[in-house]
Amino acid sequence: MAESILFEKIMIVNEDFNCEGPVYLGVDGGKIDCISETAPEKIYDRRIDGKNKVLLPALVNTHTHLPMTLLRGYAENYSLSDWLNKKVFPFEAKLTENDIYYGMLLAQAEMFRFGTVSTTEMYFRLGQLCRATAESGAKINVCNPILCFGSTDFENFSETKEYLELLQDKSVTADGRIIIDMGIHGEYTSNPVAVEKAADFAKEHGMRIQLHLSETKAEHEECKQRHGITPAAYFEKHGAFDVPCTAAHCVWLDDEDMEILARKGVTVANNPISNLKLASGIANVKKMMEKGINVALGTDGVASNNNLNLFEELKLFAVLNKAASGDPAFVTPAQVLKAATLNGARSQGRDNCGVIKLGAAADLTVIDTDKPYMHPCHDLMANLVYSAQGTDVVMTVCDGRVLYENGEYKTVDVERAVYEVEKSAYKYANELK
Amino acid sequence: MAESILFEKIMIVNEDFNCEGPVYLGVDGGKIDCISETAPEKIYDRRIDGKNKVLLPALVNTHTHLPMTLLRGYAENYSLSDWLNKKVFPFEAKLTENDIYYGMLLAQAEMFRFGTVSTTEMYFRLGQLCRATAESGAKINVCNPILCFGSTDFENFSETKEYLELLQDKSVTADGRIIIDMGIHGEYTSNPVAVEKAADFAKEHGMRIQLHLSETKAEHEECKQRHGITPAAYFEKHGAFDVPCTAAHCVWLDDEDMEILARKGVTVANNPISNLKLASGIANVKKMMEKGINVALGTDGVASNNNLNLFEELKLFAVLNKAASGDPAFVTPAQVLKAATLNGARSQGRDNCGVIKLGAAADLTVIDTDKPYMHPCHDLMANLVYSAQGTDVVMTVCDGRVLYENGEYKTVDVERAVYEVEKSAYKYANELK
Repeated sequence: MAESILFEKIMIVNEDFNCEGPVYLGVDGGKIDCISETAPEKIYDRRIDGKNKVLLPALVNTHTHLPMTLLRGYAENYSLSDWLNKKVFPFEAKLTENDIYYGMLLAQAEMFRFGTVSTTEMYFRLGQLCRATAESGAKINVCNPILCFGSTDFENFSETKEYLELLQDKSVTADGRIIIDMGIHGEYTSNPVAVEKAADFAKEHGMRIQLHLSETKAEHEECKQRHGITPAAYFEKHGAFDVPCTAAHCVWLDDEDMEILARKGVTVANNPISNLKLASGIANVKKMMEKGINVALGTDGVASNNNLNLFEELKLFAVLNKAASGDPAFVTPAQVLKAATLNGARSQGRDNCGVIKLGAAADLTVIDTDKPYMHPCHDLMANLVYSAQGTDVVMTVCDGRVLYENGEYKTVDVERAVYEVEKSAYKYANELK
Repeated sequence: MAESILFEKIMIVNEDFNCEGPVYLGVDGGKIDCISETAPEKIYDRRIDGKNKVLLPALVNTHTHLPMTLLRGYAENYSLSDWLNKKVFPFEAKLTENDIYYGMLLAQAEMFRFGTVSTTEMYFRLGQLCRATAESGAKINVCNPILCFGSTDFENFSETKEYLELLQDKSVTADGRIIIDMGIHGEYTSNPVAVEKAADFAKEHGMRIQLHLSETKAEHEECKQRHGITPAAYFEKHGAFDVPCTAAHCVWLDDEDMEILARKGVTVANNPISNLKLASGIANVKKMMEKGINVALGTDGVASNNNLNLFEELKLFAVLNKAASGDPAFVTPAQVLKAATLNGARSQGRDNCGVIKLGAAADLTVIDTDKPYMHPCHDLMANLVYSAQGTDVVMTVCDGRVLYENGEYKTVDVERAVYEVEKSAYKYANELK
């Protein structure tokens, strides 16, 4: 059991996504059990002085391919199609179970460093993704997506089935921290039969679905040629939106696509850095939000980012959407922080996460504001979104357990992970020269 | 005299903007006096182990309004015009000499924290800008721009003249660290007589010119209505480009404007975060560079950014220009780092700065790469531009003098600056409520 903690006289981002405080905030049994202007009578195991600190809900990264840490900086200056086919897929074909495991641990250490505890993850070798996450203490919605290069290749799908069975075992789901999702890589790597089979399976087992949607213009247009409908209409037609779904990217959605997503309650995982870096384009987030779509934030894999610092996405999400919409009042810092926390937790089906309130899961991140660039503080929310650095995180907590604090990774042997990741990464890069 | 320093076995970004090393790099008398694969015989005062470190040329921020630190987070969610007229100008009208001095010191501490030593600065109260910079040890090209709200208000211009005379005194120019530029705020706050007078004065005294150019569509279009020509043509016509000039923003240049800038050797100071945040737009950097224009990078003031971390601009410059041009191969990490260093130094007329080579000014920043997000390292230049954080700077050196090291500000009393800045900033915000 994690020790109980009392943060004393600390500023918080409250459930309305406003700054409030200073307050006393207590954590016990994995939950927030006290938010009070006065000191509680209860004795906590540990007390932390909140001076020059702000407590945020820990961040939720709604689109990742974490073991791609092995490919950081490997495939630079390619468009999505060449990047995938010429560089990424050949490299990934070499990855072993061990590579996935250590790549995952290194990624999760990095996440913790930058205040993220939960991710919506799409990769392969589910067993290793779960194993690393069970050890690291993170939360994850994880899928091994259907990826049909031929028309009848459902191998990955059966792997998902296998792990779903495996995960009836509570010791593997890690007290609910690990949730197995169904995954469909994308329209262009699927076919109607595979999508329907996956959707039916998800429905039957109460699973959520993750997929890539209209990331590039080519993907969007080619789908229309292939099927006579857009990718969003295709997935709707074949049942993928009949369960809660998180659709990554959505750069090229048309108005009717947005209507579908709004009607079906699909979450959009917006990945602004990755979309810019691969020259995929800029999603119309303002229109999505006006239509009532739940918009959350992701980094995508580090091969197209090239880090897992979601604070960078916070700022870019804010400023890019002002320019893209021509409206400098869109979005507000509160909307930005909500997209990176509560909206993500909702999309993962984690109703008690992503927000600071009494009884919520104690998923928290502590920001140190004692920095020259955090002064003056006319508007703490603005300072958090625009001025703060991901490295200002001094503590990351998941379900009340400290995962990172002041340079120390409590659950991950980072040196070992770096060693193992680099050993394989350089070997494969060399072989592919 | 600063102590001499030998960096031992350190990676460097060399004069071709490639990574090289490890090397021994010596600093003495304010210059780089050794770059060698083997240890030099010379004894240096101090030796620094280069393990897990990279030496970059210190960054050059080519468009700032540093004392706007007082307005950090003050004027959120406004378009440029409202932001300036309703919020910024009324606040700035209250600033005293002391406010400018302390705002400047706080800003320069923040710059040093993020590896920047030199800025191209446009603000008012030149004396305080110089006083703070003389103390902080930074380099600055500084101007007090002509800003004619009425048609005959040349008050600021005479202030520049006054300081130019003052700065014949070598003790004030701080051994060339401080260079006084002529400044013209913008087309919409000038008139032909004022521009010609300023240009003549600059020519006569061998000064460079700084100005704002085509930042917003409205500014660009209104100039055409007013004068029948674009702002670039207006400034060319009235002589502002007859001396070396740095034009900030340039978001709405048309093709002919770019031809003018290329022909006249005008540097464009691109400010991607500020331009997005104020919804001004996205500059066509690819076309500028294809036409041979020198493109450098700036943060603009913190009121529209909201920090002075030029590393954020590095990454955004790279990814935004990929998306804006539709070309994922544009720009390379080398081009990005060059824009943030050498191109900026050139625009300031500092021929011996912004690059690591034998005999160059020892303007250096040291990055610590011992971070989870800097591994693996398939491509160190990509890791520096896309993965590194501004806070990974562990040392910032200007003319061989250490200004920042491991959390210590050697020349600025940051606590005092924060105290003084906040005292005034909150008072004025309160008065303007």
